[in-house]
Amino acid sequence: MSTPANDTFLRALRREPTDYTPIWLMRQAGRYLPEYNATRKRAGSFLALCKTPELACEVTLQPLARYPLDAAILFSDILTVPDAMGLGLYFAEGEGPKFERPVRDEAAVRKLAVPDPSAGLRYVTDAVRTIRGALADRVPLIGFSGSPWTLACYMVEGGGSDDFRQVKTMLYRRPDLVSRILDVNVDAVAAYLNAQIEAGAQALMIFDSWGGVLADGAYQRFSLEPMRRVVAALKRERGEPVIVFTKGGGPWLEDIAGIGCDAIGVDWTVNLGRARARIGDRCALQGNLDPMVLMAEPEQVRVEAVKVLDDFGDPGPGAGHVFNLGHGISQFTPPDSVAALVEAVHAHSRRVRRRDASASSL
Amino acid sequence: MSTPANDTFLRALRREPTDYTPIWLMRQAGRYLPEYNATRKRAGSFLALCKTPELACEVTLQPLARYPLDAAILFSDILTVPDAMGLGLYFAEGEGPKFERPVRDEAAVRKLAVPDPSAGLRYVTDAVRTIRGALADRVPLIGFSGSPWTLACYMVEGGGSDDFRQVKTMLYRRPDLVSRILDVNVDAVAAYLNAQIEAGAQALMIFDSWGGVLADGAYQRFSLEPMRRVVAALKRERGEPVIVFTKGGGPWLEDIAGIGCDAIGVDWTVNLGRARARIGDRCALQGNLDPMVLMAEPEQVRVEAVKVLDDFGDPGPGAGHVFNLGHGISQFTPPDSVAALVEAVHAHSRRVRRRDASASSL
Repeated sequence: MSTPANDTFLRALRREPTDYTPIWLMRQAGRYLPEYNATRKRAGSFLALCKTPELACEVTLQPLARYPLDAAILFSDILTVPDAMGLGLYFAEGEGPKFERPVRDEAAVRKLAVPDPSAGLRYVTDAVRTIRGALADRVPLIGFSGSPWTLACYMVEGGGSDDFRQVKTMLYRRPDLVSRILDVNVDAVAAYLNAQIEAGAQALMIFDSWGGVLADGAYQRFSLEPMRRVVAALKRERGEPVIVFTKGGGPWLEDIAGIGCDAIGVDWTVNLGRARARIGDRCALQGNLDPMVLMAEPEQVRVEAVKVLDDFGDPGPGAGHVFNLGHGISQFTPPDSVAALVEAVHAHSRRVRRRDASASSL
Repeated sequence: MSTPANDTFLRALRREPTDYTPIWLMRQAGRYLPEYNATRKRAGSFLALCKTPELACEVTLQPLARYPLDAAILFSDILTVPDAMGLGLYFAEGEGPKFERPVRDEAAVRKLAVPDPSAGLRYVTDAVRTIRGALADRVPLIGFSGSPWTLACYMVEGGGSDDFRQVKTMLYRRPDLVSRILDVNVDAVAAYLNAQIEAGAQALMIFDSWGGVLADGAYQRFSLEPMRRVVAALKRERGEPVIVFTKGGGPWLEDIAGIGCDAIGVDWTVNLGRARARIGDRCALQGNLDPMVLMAEPEQVRVEAVKVLDDFGDPGPGAGHVFNLGHGISQFTPPDSVAALVEAVHAHSRRVRRRDASASSL
């Protein structure tokens, strides 16, 4: 496999020098783009879009045609793995994901098994291959999975939740059952990500959307430790970097930095300068603009983007910053805001590096 | 006004020595208690319950009859203030609070005015007086308000929200309008809390339920600074202590400790030992058990309660800990779990203090 023409994103994750701060956006292929909505309409449903490699490829590339983003991310859903376990993923209109057969009792837990990625998840690896072909090595492709804990939340709750009552009740009453679900999920997520690497994914991201709902102590045991085991099981023969993103994970950055990942995704409650001071040069950081900033006029978007860049400061030797939002982009985002954001991040970060280079040559 | 027979809670907030760690629970008068549901049914609606001082008094006292809690908290809603501004608070079945007339544009913002607590909020101060009479100085009574920012969220969104798109769009596009709302709310909250103090509230709590959705930087400006102004405006002639609770406020404990409050409420993502190391003896801490722990068997509840106490450690001279949940108690909580929790907190914290006292006398 060859190096992408634009490898700024990979270099930043590896904390190597870059000419500017690379940027991509969580959920960059999404409903804020009219062309995405057109393709989704053609697909018939969100799940059909995920499960048809040619269409998944088409929407993956759409934001790159509009904006000079520094990475593409596989278009898929975070719940493909439990769907392949037979839980019956579906989307009720306006309600988010649901499972027909949630995992609520011991019998259901005992029945869980690791799905073979080359069988029920073949559509994902096919999409990775198709996208790599279409990208033609312009920018790197990110593969991803939900974290073992985040998948467990959906599997036990049967969908989204306000209070995570079902999964936390199981956690506090029957930690053995939650541990058994997590054991299966660790193996399933590792096999799934390894299949994506084999198909051509050049970086990996683990989305721990619900790690932040756990108590201190429970987070380390039920979310972080399973992610550590996933990272350890990855076959990264070309050194594919791994990003771990726990939404609400600000309290635990030092802990996350110790599980073998290359970068930590952070949400907008975290000050990047303070985060950097806490983790030193152990990991790169990814983030962390509030997606709602994109609701403002382009001029204000630029101001807020510069604040995030300045909070991180000049990466300098041994540090790395990938600009991103602190959460997925909203469907209500005006596409022009994204153009202003990408332009501002590239321009300001180039200016800072030039300024610092000329200052140090004085 | 006399000192309550049991002033452990007030002493802990003032970081004075106590015989044990006091405990009360956010939303301790609530739907998990059958006697609460009976009174609410009699009232006809949640709002009628809030607005009838005798019934509000009745439910305030119910948890104290069951459990040896160390404080009572005024039974009321956090949205009484914007309701008194004329926004039309109502509760749609199973949907949480809503406003008939949300504050969405400049004209609506300009019309906002500080309500006179002795007029439209008279039912609250009447409830405080009634409860103080019924409590007969057994334990202290906590008065409370939503924070200026949290009230602004509900006022602009018109109800709860997943992404706070309306209020954040206003914040990033028209920060002047959000500042104007916050100015009104600061004066309104201060007048409201002062009226509660005058009616007999012996401690105050500011619930900043939505400060944690703000970005670093925006939190300090739009949530914390208005709370600082509220605290500064309080007439605490008997030194009534103030607790500030920002849900998700873990990143900003040092900042919160600087606004003049006596104690900081923290949610369960925060490790109490680390929080204590960060703020030193500047404030007491209140929290922080995950309310979902109460779904477990009493034995497990005890184990988790002891963990929280041990994370804080012995208060020792100059420190203070008030045990609480990290959020309101769930309506699905078995009442026996609460009994086990209160018993465990009292017993274990007494044991720790005796152990440390005998160790230091050796």
